[in-house]
Amino acid sequence: MIIDKENIASHNQNNLDQHNLRFDFTANSLIQKGVDVDTIIKKVSDFQVAIPSWALGAGGTRFGRFSYYGEPGTLEQKIEDVGLIHALTQSAGAISLHIPWDVPEDAEKIKSLTKSLGLQFDAMNSNTFQDQPNQEHSYKYGSLCSTDDNARQQAIQHNIDVIKLGEQLGSKSLTVWLADGSSFPGQNNFQTVLKNTQDSLKQIYAELPEDWKLFIEYKPYEPYFYSTVIQDWGTSFMLANECGPKAYTLVDLGHHLPNTNIEQIVATLMLKGKLGGFHFNDSKYGDDDLTVGSIKPYSLFLIFNELVYGMENNPQNPYPAWMIDASHNLKDPMEDLMQSLEAINSAYAKALLVDQKALREAQRNHDVTLCQEILQEAYLTDVRPLLEKARVLNGGAINPLQTYRQMDVRNKLVDERGKHSMATGL
Amino acid sequence: MIIDKENIASHNQNNLDQHNLRFDFTANSLIQKGVDVDTIIKKVSDFQVAIPSWALGAGGTRFGRFSYYGEPGTLEQKIEDVGLIHALTQSAGAISLHIPWDVPEDAEKIKSLTKSLGLQFDAMNSNTFQDQPNQEHSYKYGSLCSTDDNARQQAIQHNIDVIKLGEQLGSKSLTVWLADGSSFPGQNNFQTVLKNTQDSLKQIYAELPEDWKLFIEYKPYEPYFYSTVIQDWGTSFMLANECGPKAYTLVDLGHHLPNTNIEQIVATLMLKGKLGGFHFNDSKYGDDDLTVGSIKPYSLFLIFNELVYGMENNPQNPYPAWMIDASHNLKDPMEDLMQSLEAINSAYAKALLVDQKALREAQRNHDVTLCQEILQEAYLTDVRPLLEKARVLNGGAINPLQTYRQMDVRNKLVDERGKHSMATGL
Amino acid sequence: MIIDKENIASHNQNNLDQHNLRFDFTANSLIQKGVDVDTIIKKVSDFQVAIPSWALGAGGTRFGRFSYYGEPGTLEQKIEDVGLIHALTQSAGAISLHIPWDVPEDAEKIKSLTKSLGLQFDAMNSNTFQDQPNQEHSYKYGSLCSTDDNARQQAIQHNIDVIKLGEQLGSKSLTVWLADGSSFPGQNNFQTVLKNTQDSLKQIYAELPEDWKLFIEYKPYEPYFYSTVIQDWGTSFMLANECGPKAYTLVDLGHHLPNTNIEQIVATLMLKGKLGGFHFNDSKYGDDDLTVGSIKPYSLFLIFNELVYGMENNPQNPYPAWMIDASHNLKDPMEDLMQSLEAINSAYAKALLVDQKALREAQRNHDVTLCQEILQEAYLTDVRPLLEKARVLNGGAINPLQTYRQMDVRNKLVDERGKHSMATGL
Amino acid sequence: MIIDKENIASHNQNNLDQHNLRFDFTANSLIQKGVDVDTIIKKVSDFQVAIPSWALGAGGTRFGRFSYYGEPGTLEQKIEDVGLIHALTQSAGAISLHIPWDVPEDAEKIKSLTKSLGLQFDAMNSNTFQDQPNQEHSYKYGSLCSTDDNARQQAIQHNIDVIKLGEQLGSKSLTVWLADGSSFPGQNNFQTVLKNTQDSLKQIYAELPEDWKLFIEYKPYEPYFYSTVIQDWGTSFMLANECGPKAYTLVDLGHHLPNTNIEQIVATLMLKGKLGGFHFNDSKYGDDDLTVGSIKPYSLFLIFNELVYGMENNPQNPYPAWMIDASHNLKDPMEDLMQSLEAINSAYAKALLVDQKALREAQRNHDVTLCQEILQEAYLTDVRPLLEKARVLNGGAINPLQTYRQMDVRNKLVDERGKHSMATGL
Repeated sequence: MIIDKENIASHNQNNLDQHNLRFDFTANSLIQKGVDVDTIIKKVSDFQVAIPSWALGAGGTRFGRFSYYGEPGTLEQKIEDVGLIHALTQSAGAISLHIPWDVPEDAEKIKSLTKSLGLQFDAMNSNTFQDQPNQEHSYKYGSLCSTDDNARQQAIQHNIDVIKLGEQLGSKSLTVWLADGSSFPGQNNFQTVLKNTQDSLKQIYAELPEDWKLFIEYKPYEPYFYSTVIQDWGTSFMLANECGPKAYTLVDLGHHLPNTNIEQIVATLMLKGKLGGFHFNDSKYGDDDLTVGSIKPYSLFLIFNELVYGMENNPQNPYPAWMIDASHNLKDPMEDLMQSLEAINSAYAKALLVDQKALREAQRNHDVTLCQEILQEAYLTDVRPLLEKARVLNGGAINPLQTYRQMDVRNKLVDERGKHSMATGL
Repeated sequence: MIIDKENIASHNQNNLDQHNLRFDFTANSLIQKGVDVDTIIKKVSDFQVAIPSWALGAGGTRFGRFSYYGEPGTLEQKIEDVGLIHALTQSAGAISLHIPWDVPEDAEKIKSLTKSLGLQFDAMNSNTFQDQPNQEHSYKYGSLCSTDDNARQQAIQHNIDVIKLGEQLGSKSLTVWLADGSSFPGQNNFQTVLKNTQDSLKQIYAELPEDWKLFIEYKPYEPYFYSTVIQDWGTSFMLANECGPKAYTLVDLGHHLPNTNIEQIVATLMLKGKLGGFHFNDSKYGDDDLTVGSIKPYSLFLIFNELVYGMENNPQNPYPAWMIDASHNLKDPMEDLMQSLEAINSAYAKALLVDQKALREAQRNHDVTLCQEILQEAYLTDVRPLLEKARVLNGGAINPLQTYRQMDVRNKLVDERGKHSMATGL
Repeated sequence: MIIDKENIASHNQNNLDQHNLRFDFTANSLIQKGVDVDTIIKKVSDFQVAIPSWALGAGGTRFGRFSYYGEPGTLEQKIEDVGLIHALTQSAGAISLHIPWDVPEDAEKIKSLTKSLGLQFDAMNSNTFQDQPNQEHSYKYGSLCSTDDNARQQAIQHNIDVIKLGEQLGSKSLTVWLADGSSFPGQNNFQTVLKNTQDSLKQIYAELPEDWKLFIEYKPYEPYFYSTVIQDWGTSFMLANECGPKAYTLVDLGHHLPNTNIEQIVATLMLKGKLGGFHFNDSKYGDDDLTVGSIKPYSLFLIFNELVYGMENNPQNPYPAWMIDASHNLKDPMEDLMQSLEAINSAYAKALLVDQKALREAQRNHDVTLCQEILQEAYLTDVRPLLEKARVLNGGAINPLQTYRQMDVRNKLVDERGKHSMATGL
Repeated sequence: MIIDKENIASHNQNNLDQHNLRFDFTANSLIQKGVDVDTIIKKVSDFQVAIPSWALGAGGTRFGRFSYYGEPGTLEQKIEDVGLIHALTQSAGAISLHIPWDVPEDAEKIKSLTKSLGLQFDAMNSNTFQDQPNQEHSYKYGSLCSTDDNARQQAIQHNIDVIKLGEQLGSKSLTVWLADGSSFPGQNNFQTVLKNTQDSLKQIYAELPEDWKLFIEYKPYEPYFYSTVIQDWGTSFMLANECGPKAYTLVDLGHHLPNTNIEQIVATLMLKGKLGGFHFNDSKYGDDDLTVGSIKPYSLFLIFNELVYGMENNPQNPYPAWMIDASHNLKDPMEDLMQSLEAINSAYAKALLVDQKALREAQRNHDVTLCQEILQEAYLTDVRPLLEKARVLNGGAINPLQTYRQMDVRNKLVDERGKHSMATGL
């Protein structure tokens, strides 16, 4: 199923007057305050977030999984789903593949399908946290960190293979998320597994094409429950520095201990030029992988405040790779992703509204009250009309979720794919 | 210093056109969606939050305290400060006293001062967490929980004295916050201290006038660091039930372990008719006592969503007593309190905007996506024009903080009181 | 496979001298301090912990599962495994079944097998957190809390069916763990789902035989990530009170927010006569379900200190049902369970060593230093010789783990069952 | 007051037989397992922990402070107290001064007093988290991070002055704990304050004598409640690397978010040669500063397991500086410190007992069960007789706490100093 722009435009028709009214009021208010509204709309338009291929099917927990109807059963269908989301939102212009779940049978065909939908290939994701059928050496006790040389070499080689595959598709980066860790004190020697991981990453790094980047994730726990080899940004940053200039830290919002000040980590990494990628989701307890902005939208705004600051003031940091990394246990995955995209764009637009000059002045004067007012002034602004405008200008839907439902997309996919089709992978 | 309505009105003049423009747009948008805007404004107007007498001076931490200039040195000056805040915001119509820090020398004079400023006396607060000079028995090892009968009787009597004092002033409730607990395993016998506390509370309850309420706070830790006698809502609820129908649980937002779902506690207590009082503040780590809404504004909205639901659907629950319980370590306390009031009113107004009928329908249909949309639709609405309108109608300032600064209130207080005046109590 | 006492005795032979030496020294030291060593050994001997039927296979996480060899493929084999553990440790004298994973084809046969191994049937466990194949109504959006009457009735009926089955087997209690909750604000109306749950529990309670107990678990999160209907002990306690005198709270060590003082919850529940059951495991982050005592052994001791106190001083509380509820992702499940049993017995024996009289005296004197010394004196004592003695007296192994390995149990099971046999259920 | 060895020896007399019995049994058991008991005793003997000068008085919380009797009112008395503790325990052979609380009037006299008691000067501590009377520029909004050049220069100069003072006394290191941070989003620009801090530390580092070390502490929150400039080990490590080879990270056990794996941080830092110092305490919730080993003794053991490993395998890391950094709100400070010393020595001795060779072998074989057994075998051993022996050999007390009480030290100090003497500083 493909949604064309005419179809969207006709659905927009009903919302257009309301949108114009709202937009005019919002834009005028902002212009009066000296805001360059066009630039903000342009920046929001340009902001594209990758969808990982595994996000199109229902997720689950260790207690089980409730399926969704009409899940994409093939890589083509996953790409098709991202295409649908992108058509409606104009902000999901990339897909991030997971190997071995998404090995394309015909890379050229996949590339051309992807291109036809206006999508790019974002970072490639390797998988050394599960054993695949017929896999020679098990990752039960670790992969890149393993003290078992065979398992470790197999994991290194897998990552190199993923790079090779990514080159065929036109990807430019590899994301390494390492489940490696331990569930009991004493199970691992911390120094040994850290040294092994460092060595493995260097071997992978050595195979990285000139124009590629390596993103190193960190996470404090799960699936192991006592330690993980790369437990925090400090460890990832240290490893990235040791690999070299093409290696970066990747921040996943759910991968932190309770109450961590994530926005400060973002600021530090960008100052040091080492923030490579970003995984969006939301959470209340652990790595809950909920819809972006559904639990802590103000935190998301504060994080974007640092991202915007870094993008404007830290030329030493590359433009980060953005991806949604959520799990869809209860909602229609596509609806869930559209809610996430809206939350991301909303936080981004609000961060762009922060009066940086006034903020710097208030900070200089230690006017703490005013500092807070300046952030809240931006945060409390209703930026939805700006996001609508950004979408409309690119042929997207004023209200993507409403349009998705009016077009009856899910039922049409069920008709095409069958009710109990199931996404490959997790 | 007193601010009269004419003065405020003249300051409002400059903001009036902008306010009208914003209000008309907001009101029209809401009316079009079927919202009864007048009722919302009326409810926001009626919502009055008490200011505790100790909040007008600078707070501190165990590492020290940085003073603020022109702090109120007497009870009269504290009341005066609340009067100033109320004049500007029209939403701080009560003061909550702390004994022995605020024992009035002449109760009638204090009552008449308070009345003249449009203020009421909210809950009385007892203090058994510190030793006062010349106090006979120490609370170092506990007060209402104490295994030392003398200390325990002294603490009970203190609470009864506070009730007596409150009767003179026209207060109608007593808030008991109990620091009692232990810092080391084994220090206390959990069952003994719980039974003692239960018994002490019953003795205090027995002295409660017919039309009074007893509010029992809970808190997981601090100032003791291994256990507190009333560690959670469950313990407070159990104790309140044992005392009788005039005893209630009081929720302080900062008194929870990381990640606690506070809004659910609110819903449960209101269903059971036992939510008596509420202390507002915000926090990232522990009982940080920061400005309301400065850290987790969406959580505050979700909590208000339950409060609104309870106030509309739970006649078994009395109208709760509202108070700001924050510490002002860095900001001008009065500015800080005005920011808190704005955040409270904002969360309240947004919660009033939730389309309860649509939400119930979406919940019935298990339309999780839509449930989220309905909450976010209310949350993302910019309600500031409604709050402005509520203030203006009552003679308050369109922008209280701006007016406070334009009127140069703090400097005038410094002139009156001296730079290094210091608030009594903590 | 069955291990007979002669076999164990012969393996004990090698360790006997060492054991006697260690025991004599320990016993003498304790006797000199006035400890009644025989009574402690008797109590440890009598302490029997149930093994849940699902614990004999490898567990997993949402990221996958690494199997173990020779897992029990049938209910009979699960019982057999518990029998092996019990033969070696003499402290796992019960099995707890999970329905529908363990529906016996022939109840009498199962009863007789169980009896022959010296085992009893502990609490029955119902399952309304997963959909079974061919199940009419889904639990995706809740079971006992559901606003869908059909799903709710189905869940109630399932629990009643489990009671019926339990009666056939001779079980005397039903444990209800409810996954019910929500992953997004607004998804559920907190009051509605609480009232539904209360009503459902009452219906189940009404079907409880006279000599049965109902255990109500609580848990703050997972598998849902925003709220759970029974989030804490307070909610469970409230529900149990509303059901009636045969309803109790069940404490699972892993079901608490970070830093919760669990031992205090235990003390409160026993004071109120409402601690019905206990699930043992250990954790660092969330409901990690690790080997008991592997992460926080001192906390376990402090909890046992309250359990011992309650068992001695709270006749209003029934003798609690004990069960290990851990997940075995990395270790041989039987080895893991034997480590858990050792940790439980160790904590119990140490708690029995606490000089309660001296402790009460020190508490009365507010001698905080001494209170700590008294607890630590018990905790630091090496009680392993006492546990050995308790086992030997009952025909168990001096060193169960060593004996298990020397007997090559796992490999023999692999021979019998095949390498890739897989446990039914999760 | 001074305690001489003869006095101690005579008190030991009563405990000697018991001690010998216990020691012989323990030593024999260990020797049979191949443990070199003499070496362990020697290492425990050599292990000396510094006492900070502020620890000899009662601590408090933001809610107040309950004094202790006979607190040391002068620097001389503080040193005297450390001398008493050291005489009894033979393991507190150093004192760590806090400037400006402990500026000696006559450095030579202080040096000679300290030497006479067998004490050394450990790291010097600067204080830029409070304003001192007559201080020109306030640290309310930051010190080394400050955007106010005057305040920042003043803070840098203060640290340089502390170095100078330390040189006079014979100290060899400076510990910088920076309260600097913010309580509200927006208050600080993260990058600016980080750069300022880096620059300030470099200026201080430049003044460091050749044989000195700079220790940089980190802490996630308190006294500021939104952010701290050096929030975690990663930031401290980064800053230390930028300063140079004499700059190190200092780990304070209480300065971590809930559930942090501290032992892994220790292992990483030692691998990189950057663990400079260690502050001991214990906590359940935040930076509770409780007696070492009173809450999580197994964690302490796991941390020592890494420290021992690092001291044996990481020549790249210097021998760390050890200090107790606890607050004594309820107990007699000297008793509290002796309990801490016992817990530290106990954890150290147990860690020395870990069979490293067997552990490495079990790790290589992925024998997770056995890895756990090996650690627990060491942990469960009652090492108190070894600690007693180490003390006796050096002229200390078999049971320091008992001897302290029998000697009636506190009352004698009250006689000397008066009941209400109060420690200078906090």
